[in-house]
This record gives sequence, C-alpha cells and structure tokens, in this order.
Amino acid sequence: MNLALLFDEDFVGPDRVILRGRRLAHLQSVIKVAAGDSVPVGRADGNMGTGEVLRLTDTETELRVTLDHTPPAPLPLTLILAMPRPKMFRRILQTCATLGVKDIWLINSYKVEKSFWQTPWLSEAQVRENLTLGLEQAKDTRMPRVQIRKLFKPFVEDELPALLEGRQALVAHPGTSTPCPVHLNQPTALCVGPEGGFTTYEVGRLEEAGCQGIHLGPRILRVETAVTVLVSRLFDACR
Amino acid sequence: MNLALLFDEDFVGPDRVILRGRRLAHLQSVIKVAAGDSVPVGRADGNMGTGEVLRLTDTETELRVTLDHTPPAPLPLTLILAMPRPKMFRRILQTCATLGVKDIWLINSYKVEKSFWQTPWLSEAQVRENLTLGLEQAKDTRMPRVQIRKLFKPFVEDELPALLEGRQALVAHPGTSTPCPVHLNQPTALCVGPEGGFTTYEVGRLEEAGCQGIHLGPRILRVETAVTVLVSRLFDACR
Repeated sequence: MNLALLFDEDFVGPDRVILRGRRLAHLQSVIKVAAGDSVPVGRADGNMGTGEVLRLTDTETELRVTLDHTPPAPLPLTLILAMPRPKMFRRILQTCATLGVKDIWLINSYKVEKSFWQTPWLSEAQVRENLTLGLEQAKDTRMPRVQIRKLFKPFVEDELPALLEGRQALVAHPGTSTPCPVHLNQPTALCVGPEGGFTTYEVGRLEEAGCQGIHLGPRILRVETAVTVLVSRLFDACR
Repeated sequence: MNLALLFDEDFVGPDRVILRGRRLAHLQSVIKVAAGDSVPVGRADGNMGTGEVLRLTDTETELRVTLDHTPPAPLPLTLILAMPRPKMFRRILQTCATLGVKDIWLINSYKVEKSFWQTPWLSEAQVRENLTLGLEQAKDTRMPRVQIRKLFKPFVEDELPALLEGRQALVAHPGTSTPCPVHLNQPTALCVGPEGGFTTYEVGRLEEAGCQGIHLGPRILRVETAVTVLVSRLFDACR
C-alpha cells in the first residue's frame, strides 16, 4: 500500500476521514504511523495528496487530508480478457489496476471452464477490493470499470463493434504472423484469450469484427505475464 | 506445462525417457494422453521436439523422443535482483524463466528482511523446480543460472565490475530522471531493488560501479511486474 485509497464513506467532513480495518492495520503494523505523521492518500476517482494523522486508536484513525495533485494518466486501453482461472483472476485484476488499465471486459471463450464464473472473486465487493489493492500499489486513484459478459457470441456481435470504433483493435494470438506493435500509444482495444488461447473459430470472429492478430514470439506466457508484456510494448505510459 | 522438460536422469536410452511424478500427473490429468499420442518435450539445456507415448501406467510413462529443433533465444540479460519476499520469490523465478532470463543474481539490500534468506524456496532443488515450471510454461529448455550473494558490499565491490563489463548497466530506481530505454537489445545488466527500493547509499554504490539509474514512470510496481515491464521494454526478443 503506497497510498491509502479513500472512498466517500470514509469522509466525515470535507477534509476529514476515518479509516478502520485493512488500511488502519497497514498504517499501524507496516508503516507504523503515529499521531502527527503524514501518509500518502488519494480519493477514489479524485486527487491524491497527504493525510495527517490527527488521532490513532486500536480501532480507527482520523486523518486531515489535503488532496492537491492529479493521479497518473490512465492507459487508453480497452482490455477484453477471457475470464481467467480464479486463482489467477485476483492477481490479474490487481496487476491491471497497477498498470493503469481502466476499462476491462471479462468475456467467455471455449476454454474458459464454466466453474470460473462461479468464483466469489467476481462479486462487486471483491472486484473493487482487488482493484483498490492494485491502485494503492501503483499510487493511482482512478477506479477501473469491469464488465462481465458470459456469452461470447452476443458480445462479439452486438457490443464489440462499438468498442472497437476509433481504436486500434488487436487480438493476441500465438501463431499469427504479425508481432505486437510497440509504442502504439493510441486508443487501443486488446483481446487476450484464456490459458490455451482462443479457438480458431473465436479468433476468426474477432478478426471479422476488425481485430488484427498479433503475437509475442515463441514463448508461451501466462495470462498475467502476457497482459503486462503487451501493455509495456503498446504504451510508453511510463515515460 | 506446454512442454515436458527432460533431465539426464529421465533418460533410459538415447531416445527413451521414463517420467513419473508431476510430469506424469500433468500428462495424465490435464493433457489426458494415451499410448501412441505425441507430446511436446525438451531436454534441459538441449533441443526441443516431441515424445511419443510408448506405454503409460499409473506410476510411469515411457516416451520415444525426437529432439530436432532449438529452443528460443535467451535474453542477453544479467538480472541482479534484491532477494524478494518468499511468497513472491517462487513466482518471480518462474516468470524470469518464462521470459528467457538466464543469468540471475540474488543480492542483499537494506530492505531485504533477514528472514527472506531462510526460505526453503532457496534450496537448489526448489530453485530448479520453479525454473523448470517457468521453462515448461514458455516452451524453453535452457536452465537459468541463479547465484546467491548475501552481502551487498563485497558483491558490489568485488564482483559487480566484472559483471558490468561489455554490458549496458542499469539500476531501476523510482525518482531518477531517465526513463527506461526501449529496444536496447544489447547485453545488459539490470539491478532491481526490493519492495521499497534500494537505499540512497545503495543506489550511489551501484551508480559508482557504472549503473545508470532509470525509472518506469509514476506508478509503483510490484517487483514481479517491474521485472516483466523492464524486460518487455529493453528487449524485442518476442519479435
């Protein structure tokens, strides 16, 4: 937690927040704050700044916050991701939030096991919690939007065309002949398949919709690694 | 496991191997092979190819292997990494192996907790196992070399200069003014600090030794993510 992310419900006054639970525990046991200390904070979807610890008990801390600078720029990326295996899903959410991805669509694919959609990590509260952890790692405040589409065909036919409009449209697929572009730095929609990849039928449908197949070379990467590599190559956001 | 990595001890003849344990379980329960099937295999530090399943029992399988093509090119990278927290360490080993990093030095740093060096994941067998998992994910055979240096100062003074010779020398450090170069594609030595970063003293010593400080932008990344982003920016190995 390189920043404590603050939500509307944390505010008890225009510049006062009260923190309990995970954020309090982190401030106490890892950062070891005392009254009078300042800690980095940011308001969800708002500015970042500092919080001065006014008082600190075992159960809560009150901070006076000054929010005077803007969070890092978001990536101009729409990430369309086949629903990952639950044990990877949490980490992928956190990594996407840390990297600055703001628009995530979780879609179905032949190799997405039905059970993946049953994971409790897909609840709204858990998704927000894991995105929060990713933002707090990165020092960012803008909450990504996550949308769930459990049917491949209606998504591709009815929603994908509008998503691709005005964007470079790509589908990462081993075995295509075009390497991933670098420094694209434009509005981009990127489809990433499940472990084992999209099927030939699915890649065909995505290409029909306007997605260009791209590959990352001979190495087969886990989904989380592939997303990080793709984002790093497509965008110079770090520069 | 996109490839079963074979070691000398698996060979019972010039083109015959017997597999048991993890690799057998994976072939049976995930890939669901039967006698007569062919599966991707590779010999550690050797060629890749296919293994034809000659026989399969509950406890072992015998394969006839044909090893006729070379593994993907290694990255020309020497990665000098502050020893990560044990729960991240395994995954970082796997990710490095998957990405093609072949030369890894684990070093000490002020913010490396002493307990990190006690982890059983540092045993030779566990390191090999996790590197194997990373190579099997990537479809690669060249086993990375991992070296352990538990004292920062003797490493920097006595060993680092020789490691940097003939290489671009970099230290990733938030707050420096130079962004990470892209498409470097040259022999490179890259130092990556622990959670919380190298201390000012440590960065100073690394810079004295010839390392150029580089940053990845305003976002603070977990070590595993940072390594993947750095490798993706420095090398076009995927192209």
